[in-house]
Amino acid sequence: MPIITLLTDFGIADSYVAEVKGVLLSCAPDATLIDVTHLVPRGDVGAAQYLLSRAWRRFPEGTTHFAVVDPGVGSSRRAIAAHHAAHRFVAPDNGLLSFLPRDARFVALAEPASAAPTFHGRDLFAPAAAALASGVSLESVGRRIDDPVHSPLPTPRMHSDSIIGEIIYVDHFGNLISNVSGTDVQPTARVWLAGRDLGLLRRTFADVAPDDALAYVGSGGTVEIAVRDGNAAQQLEAGVGAELRMEA
Amino acid sequence: MPIITLLTDFGIADSYVAEVKGVLLSCAPDATLIDVTHLVPRGDVGAAQYLLSRAWRRFPEGTTHFAVVDPGVGSSRRAIAAHHAAHRFVAPDNGLLSFLPRDARFVALAEPASAAPTFHGRDLFAPAAAALASGVSLESVGRRIDDPVHSPLPTPRMHSDSIIGEIIYVDHFGNLISNVSGTDVQPTARVWLAGRDLGLLRRTFADVAPDDALAYVGSGGTVEIAVRDGNAAQQLEAGVGAELRMEA
Amino acid sequence: MPIITLLTDFGIADSYVAEVKGVLLSCAPDATLIDVTHLVPRGDVGAAQYLLSRAWRRFPEGTTHFAVVDPGVGSSRRAIAAHHAAHRFVAPDNGLLSFLPRDARFVALAEPASAAPTFHGRDLFAPAAAALASGVSLESVGRRIDDPVHSPLPTPRMHSDSIIGEIIYVDHFGNLISNVSGTDVQPTARVWLAGRDLGLLRRTFADVAPDDALAYVGSGGTVEIAVRDGNAAQQLEAGVGAELRMEA
Repeated sequence: MPIITLLTDFGIADSYVAEVKGVLLSCAPDATLIDVTHLVPRGDVGAAQYLLSRAWRRFPEGTTHFAVVDPGVGSSRRAIAAHHAAHRFVAPDNGLLSFLPRDARFVALAEPASAAPTFHGRDLFAPAAAALASGVSLESVGRRIDDPVHSPLPTPRMHSDSIIGEIIYVDHFGNLISNVSGTDVQPTARVWLAGRDLGLLRRTFADVAPDDALAYVGSGGTVEIAVRDGNAAQQLEAGVGAELRMEA
Repeated sequence: MPIITLLTDFGIADSYVAEVKGVLLSCAPDATLIDVTHLVPRGDVGAAQYLLSRAWRRFPEGTTHFAVVDPGVGSSRRAIAAHHAAHRFVAPDNGLLSFLPRDARFVALAEPASAAPTFHGRDLFAPAAAALASGVSLESVGRRIDDPVHSPLPTPRMHSDSIIGEIIYVDHFGNLISNVSGTDVQPTARVWLAGRDLGLLRRTFADVAPDDALAYVGSGGTVEIAVRDGNAAQQLEAGVGAELRMEA
Repeated sequence: MPIITLLTDFGIADSYVAEVKGVLLSCAPDATLIDVTHLVPRGDVGAAQYLLSRAWRRFPEGTTHFAVVDPGVGSSRRAIAAHHAAHRFVAPDNGLLSFLPRDARFVALAEPASAAPTFHGRDLFAPAAAALASGVSLESVGRRIDDPVHSPLPTPRMHSDSIIGEIIYVDHFGNLISNVSGTDVQPTARVWLAGRDLGLLRRTFADVAPDDALAYVGSGGTVEIAVRDGNAAQQLEAGVGAELRMEA
C-alpha cells in the first residue's frame, strides 16, 4: 500500500484538507494518508522546508510527499515534482524542496485547464501525488527541469575555535532549533544564544532544574535550546534568526 | 476498502473522536477513516452543512459520511441516514443534510437502548455508518421517511442587472465565502461587499498587491472575498450574512 | 490489519507525530494508525491516563496503544509495555497506565543506544509498538516486571447517605467530568459541586434551559457537570479537584 504524507498551511478547520484527500483516494484508492501537519504558519516556506526535511526520511522507501505551502498559488510560479532516494515529492517551485540534494530529479507539472486558480493543492498537486504514489514515473507527470528554485535554510559558519549558527525553527513547545549539527560539536562545548551564556551542552531536560534553560543535541540532529517545563522562545525572547555561538 | 469521512464539532483535544473511530473499526475493520474536520464551531449546523456540501463530492462513490453536529443530542430530534449518488450519509435530522437533493433517499435510525444520551455520535451514528460502509442497505438500518428537516443555506436573488447574495461561511484564513455561483457571474462583474466597492472580479490572490482586498471565484465554485496575505473577515469587518452585490 | 492508536502531548504543529508514524509504518507497514489526541496538556499524565482509559476499550481486540506523555524523557524513568484483555500498551513508567488492572502483564523496554534522549517516542516507544502490533509477544520486547508505577486517578468516598467524589478531567467544551460512577448513583440523586446546589440528576442537555447547569451521567459512565450550550468550567469557576457531592 503506497503512503502519501501531507504538509500544508491549509489549517484543520475547513474542508480543504479533506478535499485533497478525496482526490488522492479517488486516484489512488489503496493509499495510506499521513498528515505531517497542516498548521505551517501561512505562507512560511522556510518552516515547511524544515519540517519536511525532518519528516520524509522517517518514512519507508516508496513514500510520496505532498507539500503545499504556496503563497504564489495561481501566479506564474511553477509546480514541481521530485524523486530522491526512492521517495517522491510534489510542491510549488518556491524553495520548499531545497533540502533535496542537487542530484535529485525534478520535473515541472502542467496545470490542468480546470484547476481552480486558488486551490492547486486539490486540482494540480493531488492528482500528481496520487499518480506518483500509484507507481507512475516522475517523467510521466511532467517535463524534466534542472533549475528548481534553490533557497536552502542558512548554514553555520565554522571557525577554528567556534561555530556561529542560528535558530531556524521554533517548535510549538517554544524550543529553539538551530542549524548547528550535533556531529560538529564537542560534547563539552559551551553555548551562547544571542550573547547569553547558556553553559555547557547537556544531554536531556532532566539534566537541569525546572525553569532552567539548556542547550542539547535535539532529535533532529542539531543543537536546540529549551527551558525545562517551560517555553524557551518566550522566556529567552528569541526566535528564528537568533545567533547561536558554540565554543569547544 | 470502504471510506468513512468524519465531520463533527467534538474538537481534537479529548477522546471523543477516537471513541467513534474505535466503534467504526470494530464494526468495519477494513474502513479507511478520513477526517473532514472536528473543529466546526459548536452546534453550528450551517457551517457543517457548508463544509460537507463541499467535501463529499471529492470522494469516490461508495463513501460513507459521518456528520455529527448535534445541539439537540438526546432530545426527540430524529437521527437519519441518506443515500445519494452512491454516497451514504448519517447525521442528526437538524438540517445538516439539506444540501442533498429532494430525491435522495432518507431513513430514520432507531436509537439503541444502550446509547448514552449525550453521545449519539459514538453509540448511534457510528454503528449505523459502519453498517452502511460495510455494504448494508439504507433500508436495513432504518425506516424510510420523506420529511427530513430541510433548512438549506440561503440562495442569492437574481435581478436583471445584478445579483444580491450573501456570505455563508468564513474560513480560517478569514476568506469570506458567498453563495453566488461563479457560473452566474460575468468575468467582468463589479463587486460590492456590504456596500463597499471591491472593484472587478479577479482570478487569484497574485492579481492584487499584498494587503489589498479582492473578489474571485473560489475553489468551491462561488464568489469569495479575500485580502492578499491578510484576513478579510477582520480587515473588512464582515462575516456570515454580509451582503454581496454583483453587477455585470 | 493491526491498529495502533496514538496519544501524546506532542502537539500537531511540528513534525514529531509524523516522525513517529513514519517509524511505525516502516516497522509495521500494514498498520492502521488512529490518533486519540496529541493535545494532552504538556506533561499532564493524569489527563493522559483519563483519556486512554476511556478510548482503549472502544477498539477491537489486538489493538496496540502508543501513549507518550513523558516529562521525564531521557531520565532514569523506565519505559514499559503492557498486555491486558488482548490489547497492548506502550508508555513511560510514570503512572500513565495505572488504569490497567493489577493482573495485567508488564515488561520494561530496553533503551536503544541510538535513541535521542529527548525523543523516546520516536526512537524507543514506536519500534516497540510496531513490534507488538506486528504480533511479537510482550516478553520478546522487554523483561517482565511486577512493579510498574501505580498512580491511579482518585476514587470517590462512599457514605451511607452520600458520595463524595471530585472532578478528574475537564473536556474542551468545559464539561466537568467526575470520578463518581453512574452505577453507584440513584437516578433521583441531588448534586452539589464545590458546595453549589445543581439540583437533581438529569438525562441530557435538552432537559434544562440554555445557559443552565446540569449534572448527568456522561458518556464515560461517570457523573459530569455541564452548562447547556455553555462552558461549565468557566461559568462555574471549577476544575480538576473540585468536590462533587451526591445525596440519594
